[in-house]
Amino acid sequence: MSSRARAVVAGATGYSGRDLIRLLLDHPRIELIGAFASRSAETTPLAALHPQLMGLTRLDCQPFDDGVIAKLDPDLVFLATPNEFSHEAAPALLETGATVVDLSGAFRLRDAALYPKFYGFEHTRPDLLEKAVYGLTEFAREELRGAKLIANPGCYPTSILAPMIPLLRAGLVADNQPIICDSKSGVTGAGKASTATTHFVEVSESFKAYNIFKHRHAPEIAQGLGVVNESRAVIFTPHLLPINRGILSTIYVKLKDGVTRRDVLNTWRSAFEGAPFIRVFSGRGSESQMPEIKFAANTPFCDIGCAVDETTGQAIIISALDNLLKGAASQALQNANVALGFDEREGIS
Amino acid sequence: MSSRARAVVAGATGYSGRDLIRLLLDHPRIELIGAFASRSAETTPLAALHPQLMGLTRLDCQPFDDGVIAKLDPDLVFLATPNEFSHEAAPALLETGATVVDLSGAFRLRDAALYPKFYGFEHTRPDLLEKAVYGLTEFAREELRGAKLIANPGCYPTSILAPMIPLLRAGLVADNQPIICDSKSGVTGAGKASTATTHFVEVSESFKAYNIFKHRHAPEIAQGLGVVNESRAVIFTPHLLPINRGILSTIYVKLKDGVTRRDVLNTWRSAFEGAPFIRVFSGRGSESQMPEIKFAANTPFCDIGCAVDETTGQAIIISALDNLLKGAASQALQNANVALGFDEREGIS
Amino acid sequence: MSSRARAVVAGATGYSGRDLIRLLLDHPRIELIGAFASRSAETTPLAALHPQLMGLTRLDCQPFDDGVIAKLDPDLVFLATPNEFSHEAAPALLETGATVVDLSGAFRLRDAALYPKFYGFEHTRPDLLEKAVYGLTEFAREELRGAKLIANPGCYPTSILAPMIPLLRAGLVADNQPIICDSKSGVTGAGKASTATTHFVEVSESFKAYNIFKHRHAPEIAQGLGVVNESRAVIFTPHLLPINRGILSTIYVKLKDGVTRRDVLNTWRSAFEGAPFIRVFSGRGSESQMPEIKFAANTPFCDIGCAVDETTGQAIIISALDNLLKGAASQALQNANVALGFDEREGIS
Amino acid sequence: MSSRARAVVAGATGYSGRDLIRLLLDHPRIELIGAFASRSAETTPLAALHPQLMGLTRLDCQPFDDGVIAKLDPDLVFLATPNEFSHEAAPALLETGATVVDLSGAFRLRDAALYPKFYGFEHTRPDLLEKAVYGLTEFAREELRGAKLIANPGCYPTSILAPMIPLLRAGLVADNQPIICDSKSGVTGAGKASTATTHFVEVSESFKAYNIFKHRHAPEIAQGLGVVNESRAVIFTPHLLPINRGILSTIYVKLKDGVTRRDVLNTWRSAFEGAPFIRVFSGRGSESQMPEIKFAANTPFCDIGCAVDETTGQAIIISALDNLLKGAASQALQNANVALGFDEREGIS
Repeated sequence: MSSRARAVVAGATGYSGRDLIRLLLDHPRIELIGAFASRSAETTPLAALHPQLMGLTRLDCQPFDDGVIAKLDPDLVFLATPNEFSHEAAPALLETGATVVDLSGAFRLRDAALYPKFYGFEHTRPDLLEKAVYGLTEFAREELRGAKLIANPGCYPTSILAPMIPLLRAGLVADNQPIICDSKSGVTGAGKASTATTHFVEVSESFKAYNIFKHRHAPEIAQGLGVVNESRAVIFTPHLLPINRGILSTIYVKLKDGVTRRDVLNTWRSAFEGAPFIRVFSGRGSESQMPEIKFAANTPFCDIGCAVDETTGQAIIISALDNLLKGAASQALQNANVALGFDEREGIS
Repeated sequence: MSSRARAVVAGATGYSGRDLIRLLLDHPRIELIGAFASRSAETTPLAALHPQLMGLTRLDCQPFDDGVIAKLDPDLVFLATPNEFSHEAAPALLETGATVVDLSGAFRLRDAALYPKFYGFEHTRPDLLEKAVYGLTEFAREELRGAKLIANPGCYPTSILAPMIPLLRAGLVADNQPIICDSKSGVTGAGKASTATTHFVEVSESFKAYNIFKHRHAPEIAQGLGVVNESRAVIFTPHLLPINRGILSTIYVKLKDGVTRRDVLNTWRSAFEGAPFIRVFSGRGSESQMPEIKFAANTPFCDIGCAVDETTGQAIIISALDNLLKGAASQALQNANVALGFDEREGIS
Repeated sequence: MSSRARAVVAGATGYSGRDLIRLLLDHPRIELIGAFASRSAETTPLAALHPQLMGLTRLDCQPFDDGVIAKLDPDLVFLATPNEFSHEAAPALLETGATVVDLSGAFRLRDAALYPKFYGFEHTRPDLLEKAVYGLTEFAREELRGAKLIANPGCYPTSILAPMIPLLRAGLVADNQPIICDSKSGVTGAGKASTATTHFVEVSESFKAYNIFKHRHAPEIAQGLGVVNESRAVIFTPHLLPINRGILSTIYVKLKDGVTRRDVLNTWRSAFEGAPFIRVFSGRGSESQMPEIKFAANTPFCDIGCAVDETTGQAIIISALDNLLKGAASQALQNANVALGFDEREGIS
Repeated sequence: MSSRARAVVAGATGYSGRDLIRLLLDHPRIELIGAFASRSAETTPLAALHPQLMGLTRLDCQPFDDGVIAKLDPDLVFLATPNEFSHEAAPALLETGATVVDLSGAFRLRDAALYPKFYGFEHTRPDLLEKAVYGLTEFAREELRGAKLIANPGCYPTSILAPMIPLLRAGLVADNQPIICDSKSGVTGAGKASTATTHFVEVSESFKAYNIFKHRHAPEIAQGLGVVNESRAVIFTPHLLPINRGILSTIYVKLKDGVTRRDVLNTWRSAFEGAPFIRVFSGRGSESQMPEIKFAANTPFCDIGCAVDETTGQAIIISALDNLLKGAASQALQNANVALGFDEREGIS
C-alpha cells in the first residue's frame, strides 16, 4: 500500500464533518483535497463556514457532485452526510475505486428490513449491507484492512458495544437477564439543524429522555451485542444533556454467579491490549475513579469502568466518549488508517 | 375604577407571553379570560404548549382573531406579539375600549421615520405613536393612569434607562461625553424561533457581540435618555450570554467634577423612593456587593449599583434585571396595574 | 387549630433554607419570625446573605441558639440543616412544643443501625425515629395532621417513591425483578459548600455517576418501596447534571403479564386524585409528552409519566421535580400546612 | 542552538499547567521530563490528577523541589504557579541555566512599586523585572530569542494589547480619549481553587462584573499600552462568564478624524503579517463576521475584528482568545519556541 492518501469529505457543514476536517488538516499521511456540502449549496470557503478553521485551510466547500469527486480521484471518501443521502450517494462513489467511510447509519444494519421502520426509507442495496464492514475498530481490524465500504458505528452504540462485547464473549453475563443501557448525550449528537429540540432555552437548565423504545440506535446495539434472535432484552434509553459534546452510558447488567469486578477488568485488559483508544478505569477503593464526560470530551478515547455489587452480582458499567470523535470523526479516521494499512493512531492523538 | 379586570394575552406561545400568563394566573384582581397565538395557529390547550402550566390552567390558546377578542370584551389586551403584528393589530383592539399593553417595539419610538430602518416596516399610525405612553413605570405613573395604549419598554432599554435617567435629570453627568452601554442578555431575549443564533451548540460555551451599531434598541435608549438631538453620543453594544434569562448592563459614564458615588446613590434613592421594583445596591467597602444576574433573574426587580473612581470622575454603573419580567411581562403587569388604578405590586411580588 | 402560625428556619444560609424563606415570605398564614445559621455564624441581614431577597425582608439571620428560638415561641421550626446538626438539635426544639420539620436525613430511616454506615454517625434517638412521620405528603396526610416531628423526604427518594408506591401497592410490578433507578440531579443537590465536586469547571460540559451502590438515599428508597426485607433488588445510581436545579429519574421496572400503560396511568390517576402537586403526563401517541426537568423546575410539582413496551412488559417510568422545592422546601411547607390543618396548597402555588 | 530541548512544568495541578503538559506531550522537539506540584504535595501520577491525560503519559507529578529540578538539568522550566510562588522560586531556577517561562504575574510589571497594591507582596527582585522579557510574542520576537526569563502575559492583557498596540503605534487613536475595555472571561481564569466564586450554582445562569477599578491586570494593560504616564485613561472591567474557557474583550476607542475601518484592518494586516496565531476578521457588509469565543476556544489564536461608526469615529474592537492557550499555555510554548530558536508554531497548531 501507498504511504500517503488523498481524501475528500462530504457533509462538511455538519459538526462531524467539521471535526473530521480539523483532524485531516493535521494528518501526516492523508491530504484533504476536497470538501462538499449538499447538492444545492453554494461554494463557500471552509473557513467562512467554520471560522474555527480560519488560518488552517484555504479550501472551499463545494456543492456535492459525484462527477467532481470522481475527477479528484481520491483514495478516501468520508460521508458525514444524512442517512438517506449516504444510501443514495455511496454506490457511485464506490465505483471510483475509493474507500468509502460512511458516518451515517445507511450501511450499519445487516437486515435491510429494519430500514423503513428505523430510518424511514427502503434500503435498495442489501448487497452493500452485506459487504460493508461495521467499523467498531477494536473488533474489526482484520476486516477493515483493505475494506472498500466502512459503516462507521453510531455514537451511542460505540459507547455500549465497546465495554459489553468482551464481557459477553467471555461469558461473564448472566443469561436471560436484560441489559439496560441508560445513555446521555450532548447536543451536537442532535446535529446542526435548528429545531425546538436544539434551541438553547429548551435544552439549557433541563434534561429529558427521548425516543424511548424507538431510537434507531437500538437495533444497531442489539445487532452488535449479538442478541437479535436471543431472548435477552436490550433496553436503550437516550437522554439529552445540556452540554455540547460527550456521551456517558450507564449500563446495568447481571453477572454470572461468582464473577467479580476483577474478572471484568481483566477481561477488558486482555480484550483491549494494544488498543490505543480504549482506556480501562481500573483503580481500587478510594481511587476507583470512574469515567466522566469531561475526561473523554475532546479526545479520541472511549473510557470504560465498572462497579460490581459482589453479593448480588449486579454490575454497573460506565462508559464515556466524545460523540463527535470516538463516536464519529476520530473513529472514522481510525478505520481509514487501518483500511489503508497506516498506524491506527496516525493523525488522531 | 373597578376593583377587578379581565385580560387576554396575544402571543401566548412565546416566552414573554408564557411568563405573563403565569403571573396573571396568580393575580388577585385580574382574570385571564383568553389566550391567543398567531392567526393560523390551531387551538391547543395552554398546558400542552407550555407543560410548565399543567395543573394551573385549563384555558385553550386560540388562533388570533380580533372579532373573537372583541366578543370577550376584555378590560386589558396584552400584545406579546412580533413588532409588525402589534402595529397592525393594535388599532382594532383599541376600538374595543380595552387598554392595550404592547410588549413589542411597535409603539415605542416617537419618531415614525425610524421604523423602516430599525424595524423594517413603514409606521402607518404616527397618531398612535404620539398617544402611546412609554411604560417605564417608575417614570410614567401619571401618564399611565387611565392610559389606553401602553408601549412596554424593551428589555435592554429598561436596564439602561432606569439607572441613567435620574443621573441625567440631576445633572450629575459630564456634558459632551459619550455614554457607553455594554449590555449582555440571555437567550430568551432572542425569542422562541429556532435559528442558528439560538442553537444550543452555537451559544453554549461561547459569547459574542451582535448588531453592533445597529440594534433596534439603540434609538429607544437614545430617546429615553433625551439625547436624540444632543451632541452626546450613546453607544450601545448587545452581547449574547449562554444563559436562559437575565440582562446585565455595564454603563460607562463620566461624572461632572466633584460628583461622588454617594451623590449617585442619593440621587437614586430619592428618585426611587417608594418604587417597589428598583433595588439600589448601596453597600460600602468590602460589602459593596454589585448587581449580578442571579440576584435579579426570576424576580420583577431592576437592580442598580455603581462604582466611581473619584480621582477621574469615571463611573461604572451596573444594572441587572430579568429580561422576561422587569424587561417584559412583570413590567407590563406593573403598567396595567397602574393604568387600572390597582396597587402597582398586585400579582407581581 | 389556629388559623395562623409563626415559623423559624434554621439553616437559612443554604439553598433549601433560602427557597423555604422565599416561600414563607409570601405565605398568607405563616409568618417567618426568625432565621438561623450555624452556631458560630455572625448576625447578618438575610438580604445580604441572599441578595435575591433584597426588598423582600429586613430579617436578620442569627447564630443558631435553641434558647433564642425557644423564646420566640414558634409554632413551626424548619431544620434545613446538616444531618448531624438536625440529629442533635431536634430534641430540644421538640420540647418547646413546636412542630419540627426536618429537611435533613436525620429522622428518615426507621432502622437506627443504618446511620453509622450511611450517615457517618450513631443515632442516639431511635425513639424519635419511630415517632417521626415520613413526610411524603401524598401518602402520609393522616399521620401528618398534628404531627410534631416530620422527616421531610430526600429529593431523589421523592422522585422515585411518588410514581412507584402506587404501582407496587396496586400489584402491577412483576415479582423478583429488580427496580433500577437511574437518577440525575442538578448541582444545588450537592449543597452550597465549595468543593472540587461543585467547581464550575468540573461540572460544566460534563456529566458523571457518583456514589454508585453507596448513596445514602438508597436505604431511604428501599424503605419507602417496602422492599427492605424482600428479595427484590432496588438499584439506585445518582448522576450529576450541569444544571442548577431539578431531578429526573428514569426507572426501569418489569410489569406483570398483561399490565398496560393505561393500567399504570389509571393507577396513578386514582392514587393522586386531589393531590395538587403530582402531575400525571398521560398523553397518547405523538402527544405523549414525557416529564422533563424544565417543566418541573421552579415549581412545586412532581411530574410522572411512563412508556411501556407491551410485548415484553418492560416499563420505563420518568419522573421530574425541583430538588429544592418538591424535593425539599415546598414539600416541607406542604407538610407543615397539613400538620397545622391548613389547605395543603397555601403559600405554595 | 540545539534542535531539541527538555522541559519541566511546575504548577502541574492547575488548568494552565495541565494544558501546557498536554501540548508538550505532542511537541516534536521538546520533551517533558518532569512535572511538579506544590512543595507539600504527594507524588501522584499525572494521569490520576488529570484523567484526561490517561494513556498519554506515565509521568509522576512530584512535590516542588528546586534541587530535584536542578538535577534533571532541564533546558526549560515553565512556572504555571501562583504569583508569589513564582516570585520566590524563579531566582534559583534561573541559576540552573534553564530558560524560565513564568505564566504568573510575578515578573510582568516593570515597576516593582505596583506589586504590594496589586499582588499583595513586596517585590524583592527589581533587577529581574528589568531583565524579564514580556512575552507578548508578536511584539517581542527579537528580545525573546535567547531570553532567560520570560514573563508570559496575562490572559486579559493579551486580548487587549494584541489589537490595540498596532493601532496606537500607527497613530490611529484620538488623543486624550479613554480606552474602555469591557472584558468577559470563562471560569478557568479564576483557577482551580474551590470558592464561592467558582461554585457551579453561583456562576451558572448568572453573569457579573468583578474587581471593578481594582483588577491586577489593569496596570499590566496600562503598561502594555504605554499609557502609564499619559493622560489617556484606560478603564478595564472584567466579568465572569458561565463557560469554561475563553475571553472576549469589547474595546471602545475613539479614532482620529478620518480614520476608517479599512485603515484599522490594514494596520493589523501589516502588523501581523507572518504572525501565525493572530487572525484578523476582515469581512465586509453582511459577511462581517466578528470574533466569538467559540471560534477561538481550544485554539492557539487571538482573533480580532472591528466595527467603526465612520460618522463619529467611534470604533468597537472585538477580540477573543482561549485564556488557557493564547492567554497562557500556548503563548508560553510560542515564547519558548522563539527563545530556543525553534519555529514559533512547533507543537502548537
